[in-house]
Order: sequence, then structure tokens, then C-alpha cells
Amino acid sequence: MDQKEANIKRISYPALLDFVCQVLTSLGVPECEAELVSESLVDADLKGVHSHGVVRLPIYAERLRAGVINAKPNIKRKREQLGSCIVDGDNGLGHLVGHLAMEVAIDKARANSVPSFVAVEHSNHYGAAGYFVEQATRADMIGFSFTVGAINHMAPWGGREALLGNNPFAIGLPRMQGQPPVILDMACSVAARGKIIVAARNGERIPADWALDLQGRPTTDPIEALKGLVQPVGGPKGYALTLVVGLLSTMLTSALFGSGLRHLYEDLENEQNSGHLMGVLPINLFTAPEAFSERMSQVSYEIHNAEKASGVEEIYLPGEREHLSRERAIRDGVPLGTGVIEDLKACGRQHGAKLPIPY
Amino acid sequence: MDQKEANIKRISYPALLDFVCQVLTSLGVPECEAELVSESLVDADLKGVHSHGVVRLPIYAERLRAGVINAKPNIKRKREQLGSCIVDGDNGLGHLVGHLAMEVAIDKARANSVPSFVAVEHSNHYGAAGYFVEQATRADMIGFSFTVGAINHMAPWGGREALLGNNPFAIGLPRMQGQPPVILDMACSVAARGKIIVAARNGERIPADWALDLQGRPTTDPIEALKGLVQPVGGPKGYALTLVVGLLSTMLTSALFGSGLRHLYEDLENEQNSGHLMGVLPINLFTAPEAFSERMSQVSYEIHNAEKASGVEEIYLPGEREHLSRERAIRDGVPLGTGVIEDLKACGRQHGAKLPIPY
Repeated sequence: MDQKEANIKRISYPALLDFVCQVLTSLGVPECEAELVSESLVDADLKGVHSHGVVRLPIYAERLRAGVINAKPNIKRKREQLGSCIVDGDNGLGHLVGHLAMEVAIDKARANSVPSFVAVEHSNHYGAAGYFVEQATRADMIGFSFTVGAINHMAPWGGREALLGNNPFAIGLPRMQGQPPVILDMACSVAARGKIIVAARNGERIPADWALDLQGRPTTDPIEALKGLVQPVGGPKGYALTLVVGLLSTMLTSALFGSGLRHLYEDLENEQNSGHLMGVLPINLFTAPEAFSERMSQVSYEIHNAEKASGVEEIYLPGEREHLSRERAIRDGVPLGTGVIEDLKACGRQHGAKLPIPY
Repeated sequence: MDQKEANIKRISYPALLDFVCQVLTSLGVPECEAELVSESLVDADLKGVHSHGVVRLPIYAERLRAGVINAKPNIKRKREQLGSCIVDGDNGLGHLVGHLAMEVAIDKARANSVPSFVAVEHSNHYGAAGYFVEQATRADMIGFSFTVGAINHMAPWGGREALLGNNPFAIGLPRMQGQPPVILDMACSVAARGKIIVAARNGERIPADWALDLQGRPTTDPIEALKGLVQPVGGPKGYALTLVVGLLSTMLTSALFGSGLRHLYEDLENEQNSGHLMGVLPINLFTAPEAFSERMSQVSYEIHNAEKASGVEEIYLPGEREHLSRERAIRDGVPLGTGVIEDLKACGRQHGAKLPIPY
């Protein structure tokens, strides 16, 4: 977490869900869809992934208001096959389109006993990629989700032009009943741009490998970094990864990529036409789910009990920290930074919704 | 490339293929399979990925001789479905098993118009992951290949016990006829262990973020590093990635993972039981291949023509450097380090094969 504990307040989980839902319905989103989007959005905050949580509500609201997100999309399937199709999101909220596309992938895989992949076009920023692969793990399937970032702020390796987004992807594997799935959910930069924003707010320097300035030189000044580019993790590895994740998300459909991408915050006149790729592999195609669970449990046991480096108390599987954070947030309230709370209050005032009192 | 140009000699491509083939057939590998493995192995050297090329021939030969790789495997399919199956490699050479498994995936996808994934057990070290996704791209499909590393030398994040391999994976997308495919082929460490070996040989220090010593502390001493652990790229990101790649490669079958893994070089008494996962998405399930090619060409054009950082002459797509290296090596000879050449000569003497004279 980036925010200092002192600047954190907690808001009741059901009350926060209700608030997000009210804002969305006031903008014409039908109740049922608004509930689904609220759950997906707040889920990121529950997990401590605040960069993809309610901090994004004001921009979604603004885009809905400007008519560049469609509040009542007619989401359609095209080119249906046994284990694939294209989902045309009709410019609906990305969380909604993403959720439905993953449901389509799961249904096809289950109905036809095949791996299933769904390519999505005319969607929007869909939040945290991990959310969708968790859907797959609940259906006893391995899940894949790839998407294109909503802002270009990475350059191809050797370049200094922002042609690429920091494209996120997630892979999830189910574990035994009652245990959280293993969830890899990452983007391709050394550090998230959100961390640079926080450093700029706090007047701190950043490590030299996080970002490049406008001239393509490494910089430790977060203000210069925000005008420039974020650096890919592992240099050419991160470049190759972000490019390939972006291509998987967009090349199979009409979704936008490269210089054609439209900026989430700065272009309020055109739809984003974001692309995603959702995929599932049902465990039972390959082995008995019980045998798979048993194997996963053995690995989990070994990793949890590995010899620890000095100062380390617990070793986690990917996704476990987020699971613990979620359990605590549901019990004690969703932790939000005071800055985010102010932004949400303002957003609420605009849309006749009152943010519940933090504690 | 790590080797200094001065230590590089070139060997005729067809003659090198022939040499590898002779070594393998002398160990009982049938002619046809030996040719296939030779092509796959030397392909890595053509591309400049020497860590996965003929440098590995002596250990494969040693394992064949020790009877812990099966020279004449009876490779079988199990649990066949429309778009999936398990391939039991019967402890055959990994390149052979991997190639056949990817062919099975491609055939199923083509025959049944579905995405197709094949999980592989009882295989061995399969070389460069990129080789197999190239098979898919030649069939106008997107290809995925995941495998488990043949030696554990990474720890879970926060740990100091080598429970994880530096697990490699590849994703490939086809381009227009005559243009090389886009190939992401990476493992999950900051730097390949091979680079640390080279630094140790040359008496050089290594950067502090490459490796940990036996106590789990960062080290710049390559000798200490080789006793210790390699560091995951991007810290927890690389850990999550290597774990998930490993799980995808092994959890669906009986393949070995974690503390059960058998060391490629040190355990000459037991089969490795390596696991892989191969997957393909036929482009024509989603869109016309011509439309896909056209979109890929636009992206390629933009990336090649992006503004360059100072001192950079060319910007490449992932896989393009390797393609150029291959073209040159086929024409001018395969570049090999003098150390590798000595090892191959010795290997040849053992197996009645004469290494062609370098030039």
C-alpha cells in the first residue's frame, strides 16, 4: 500500500457498495448492472489494489455523463464457435463487459468440454485483471485475462515515444475449497504509475529505474517522470511482455492499439474501444479436480514452509495477501486514503449520492 | 550474446545438424527423431540463444547413456477431448515430446475449430520455449508454451530455499507471409544463470540485483551467486510469474514440481518427468487471417518507426533480432564459443561423431 496509515480511513463495505451503485444508477446504469460493476470495482479496494478501485469512479462517471461510455449497452456475441466467440461490448462499462465475456468463456467450456477463449471489443477500462480470472477459478477452471492499458505511457525498447500501455494480465488457478486461488495479476512496468503520482504528491524522489523523462533519460524526479514514460520491468523483457499482452487483447478484433489508443482521462469525446482476451481451461478436461487440488495443496505447503530470509515472517502465494486484506476489509471496513474520500464525496454530491461516514 | 567476438567461431549449419544427429543416433535415437531434435536444438544457436542450444548436447547424451532419457519412447495420448489431451512423453527427449505435443494441439484446433491445449508429462528439458510457439504461428495460430525449469535455483519471495525453477514461457503471434512472427520467449529471473557462469569464468563481478548468496543476501560475487539463488525479475512479480508458469506446466498431470524436481545435471539416476503446457488459438476462429495480418503490420510499422532514444539505430519487435541472427547463421555458419566447441569435440569423440571444422 502506498498511502501512509495515518491518511487511511475505513468505510463500511456494504455502504460503500451502495454508494457506488447509487452514483452509477443516477447516470442511467440499470440497477442489476450497477451492482455488478460496484462489486467488481470495490473488490480491488478490498484487496488493497487501490489503483484499480473506487479511485476510478469519478472518471467512469465523467465518461458516462459525457456519453463516451454507454450506460445501457446491448452486449452481443459474434462468430460463435464451440470454444470461442467475439463479444462486442457496445461501449459498456469495462467491468460489466469483462464479467459477461468471462461468463461466456466459462459457459462454452462447460457446455462443450473444451478450452474456451473470448475476444472482446468495444469495451472500456475493466479494472483489475485478477477479478475475472477469479470467476474462472470459482468454476474449477484455470483462467487467463489480458487487457490493453487505458493510457500509453511506455515506449518500445530503444524508443522514447509512448506507443504502448502498461498492459495488465492475470492468470488464476483454483485451490481446494475454502482456500483462496493462486492469482498472478501484474502489469509490465517496474513500478505502477500510481506510485510515481504518490511520490510527486509527497515531494519524494523516485528510484532511477522507474521512469524516463521526455528526452528518454532515466529520472529520479517524479514530476519529470509523469511527463515522460514508465520503464518496463526487466528492460526488454517487460517491453516484449507488454507488447504481446496488448496484441493478444486487440489484434483479434477491432479494438484500438498503439497510436490509435484513446486516453482514459484526456479524451472525453471518443469511446475507448478497449480490447480484452478472456480464456479458461477446465481442470476436469485434464485430471480429476480432487487430484489437482491435492497437488496444489502440496505445493502450497512447501512454499508456506520454505526457509525464510532474515526478517521475513510469512511467505505468501500470489493472491494470498489480497485475500487476507479482503477478509479484513469486509470485517473492519474498506481502507481508503483521505484524498480518495474527498474525491468520492465530490462525485457523490454531483450525483445525489452521499458517501457513508468513514471511521 | 555473452561470449566475446574473439572467442567465437562459426560452423556450417548443415554440418552441425549432421553432427548432432550422429551423436543422437549413436545413442539409439531413431534417425527421424534425431533429425527433429537436432533442428530444434541448433535453432536456438541460430537465433543466438546459446544457453538452450548445442551447449546442452553433452548432458542430453549423458542422460541417454545413463538410461534416464528414453531413446525410443512410445509417446501416447490420454484423456482425449475435442480441444485437449494429455501427452505422456514416455521419458523421451524433451524437444521431440514438445514438438509432437504442439502438433497434437495444432491438429485438434484445426480439426475441431476450437482453441486447443495439451498438457505434457514424462518429458525432459525441451530447450527454447519459443521454438514450439513458432510451430503454431506457421499454422496461422497464436501459440503458448509453458515449461518447468530443469533446476531449482529460485526461492519463493521472502524465502531463501531453492524450491522454484526459473520457469520459461513463450507466446507467439503470426505476421504477414515472409515476416517473422512476434515471439515473446522469457524466463523469470533478472538475468539468466548462464550470464553468472560467464562472469565467474571471466573473473568479473555481477550487478547486486542478479543473485542471492547461500544466506539469502544480495551478492556481486558470481561464485557465491552460483551456490545461491537467482533473483526474480521485478521481485514479487517475477516470483509470481515463475510460480504460475511452473504450476501451469505441472499441476494438470503427474509432472514433478517443487522439492520433487530432479536436477538436470546432478541426478543421473532418475527420469526428470518434466511437464509442459502447449496451447493454440487459431486466428480464423476470431477474424480473417488477412485482417489480422493487416492489423499486425500496422503495429509493426508504428513500432519500427517510433522516435528512438539517443544512440539507438533500430527498434525491434520481440523475435526479430533472433530472426536476423538466424538468417546470418544459416548463411555464414553457426557462431559458437570456443569452450562449447571443445565440449562438443569431446562429446563427438565419445560417440563416434566428428565435429566439422570451424572457420
